[in-house]
Amino acid sequence: MLNKPVLVIGAGGHAAVLVDILRQLNRTIIGLVAREKPKDNLVFDGIPYYASDDDVLTFDKNEILLVNAIGSLPGRTARTKVQQQFKNAGYQFITVVSPHAIVSQYSRLAEGVQVMPGAIINANSIIGEGTIINSGAIIEHDCIIGADNHIAPGVTLSGFVKTGDRVHIGTGANVIQNISIATDTLIAAGATLNRTIEKPDQVFYPAIGLLTSKRNTL
Amino acid sequence: MLNKPVLVIGAGGHAAVLVDILRQLNRTIIGLVAREKPKDNLVFDGIPYYASDDDVLTFDKNEILLVNAIGSLPGRTARTKVQQQFKNAGYQFITVVSPHAIVSQYSRLAEGVQVMPGAIINANSIIGEGTIINSGAIIEHDCIIGADNHIAPGVTLSGFVKTGDRVHIGTGANVIQNISIATDTLIAAGATLNRTIEKPDQVFYPAIGLLTSKRNTL
Amino acid sequence: MLNKPVLVIGAGGHAAVLVDILRQLNRTIIGLVAREKPKDNLVFDGIPYYASDDDVLTFDKNEILLVNAIGSLPGRTARTKVQQQFKNAGYQFITVVSPHAIVSQYSRLAEGVQVMPGAIINANSIIGEGTIINSGAIIEHDCIIGADNHIAPGVTLSGFVKTGDRVHIGTGANVIQNISIATDTLIAAGATLNRTIEKPDQVFYPAIGLLTSKRNTL
Repeated sequence: MLNKPVLVIGAGGHAAVLVDILRQLNRTIIGLVAREKPKDNLVFDGIPYYASDDDVLTFDKNEILLVNAIGSLPGRTARTKVQQQFKNAGYQFITVVSPHAIVSQYSRLAEGVQVMPGAIINANSIIGEGTIINSGAIIEHDCIIGADNHIAPGVTLSGFVKTGDRVHIGTGANVIQNISIATDTLIAAGATLNRTIEKPDQVFYPAIGLLTSKRNTL
Repeated sequence: MLNKPVLVIGAGGHAAVLVDILRQLNRTIIGLVAREKPKDNLVFDGIPYYASDDDVLTFDKNEILLVNAIGSLPGRTARTKVQQQFKNAGYQFITVVSPHAIVSQYSRLAEGVQVMPGAIINANSIIGEGTIINSGAIIEHDCIIGADNHIAPGVTLSGFVKTGDRVHIGTGANVIQNISIATDTLIAAGATLNRTIEKPDQVFYPAIGLLTSKRNTL
Repeated sequence: MLNKPVLVIGAGGHAAVLVDILRQLNRTIIGLVAREKPKDNLVFDGIPYYASDDDVLTFDKNEILLVNAIGSLPGRTARTKVQQQFKNAGYQFITVVSPHAIVSQYSRLAEGVQVMPGAIINANSIIGEGTIINSGAIIEHDCIIGADNHIAPGVTLSGFVKTGDRVHIGTGANVIQNISIATDTLIAAGATLNRTIEKPDQVFYPAIGLLTSKRNTL
């Protein structure tokens, strides 16, 4: 698996960071698949361009690895669809770990996990298939993160946090220890979560602006 | 001190991260002391197990170093008690710094300080005995952190922050520059502190959920 | 430019971190310029001291580089004035990047940018002249940051964030993707910003204390 060339699906901002990482890892990048050809993007320089998902199928599924480089935003399903579609067609997705991430050798990353620059994953944590641990996010020890999660930049998950599938934890949000978060939950940017979310689809908005100060003694 | 074997007290999540670090540092780990034997934990593989604090005393205090691997949570005193008990018995605690932490050579770490992966400690900061600077926490320049503090994962302390002893700053909390925080104070996860806490035991709850946006002109 | 000696203007906390970095980079530091002589500061040990801005002018502008080591705080203009004054006099400011920062080779840093320990700058981001990306701050892909900004420690900017000049984003604040922030805006410590700031001088206060939890479905 280590030496197979990679084909990158997506050509937006997340794709740029992934290609940057893949270049640092000296991977051979045989193509970029996106509906629109990216322009003026030095990161993508010299990579052959393909316009359609059908082009992917012209590559032998045993000879290449795919990179799901479509970004993850709440409510958008394109990323997950790409993952399912090409898995069903027999392709494998490469697990990408930035050389500038700090990943414990006692953690486990499933297929297609993407660990971006400066992210931290501590001992005994498990990251599910296709999940993004984005730049500078902190995954403490003993976390179990589901599939197709997006742990956004700057998020901090304390120890023993569990998430279901397709959970989105927004930029800079915090989750204290021992919290579970149901499948399909969105935690908004900047939110701090200190209780378990038992049912899917609950939404927490971010903290913005002036808040009154309240002092409490436990 | 550099070559003495270490005996780890505690076998929970924090212990796992510490043992992971100690292995990276090629320290010899002669035992794990915990009331319950940890199971299915690859990090602890091959380390002799001891059930009781009394077992610690069978080791020559001049020939080993202790690792206080008991985690720190608000209201729990087990960690501090272990530190005091074995200090009184003449043992020394090793200062543990992850090779993936960024620690200025112009900072000072007291005995038994633990600097976890991705933590940052800048010039002229001083960290008190037994304090944990947890994963990804940022200690800016000229901070003076007391003994037995827990600076939780993802916390940011700006320059010239001072804390007393046994201060707990929760996951992802922020403290602006020049703030002092009294002994035994708990700053909740996600809180942002912009004033000095003069008396102990004040408690700030985290920010959770939807907050109204208020715009202000200074 | 790489081998010219540097002259450091400022001798406070930010200066200490910069000198620490410059020493790690093996730069020759020919002087420290500050109204008051710093005392008991090991970082500055052995660096010649100069009391006045006029002393700067005694150095040949073609033979040295300046370091603007004056810290940035909301409402204070000293840092920007130093930059302008000596630029006008023909001096150049060195761009300082901590060896412990993670900076994409596909990002661009203007003259005098300072990237502090543990900061992350991803692909296709552009940082304007004289701006500080402080310790542990995260600048995601495709951000365009103006001149003389202070992106404080622990800040997270998601992808495609744009800022004007002299923007201050306080400790630990978060900005979601695609947000623009007008010139001279102050985002307070700990705030989370999820909308564009179109006019200058708007101010968001930090979140502090106990907030009620509100659950919402999008």
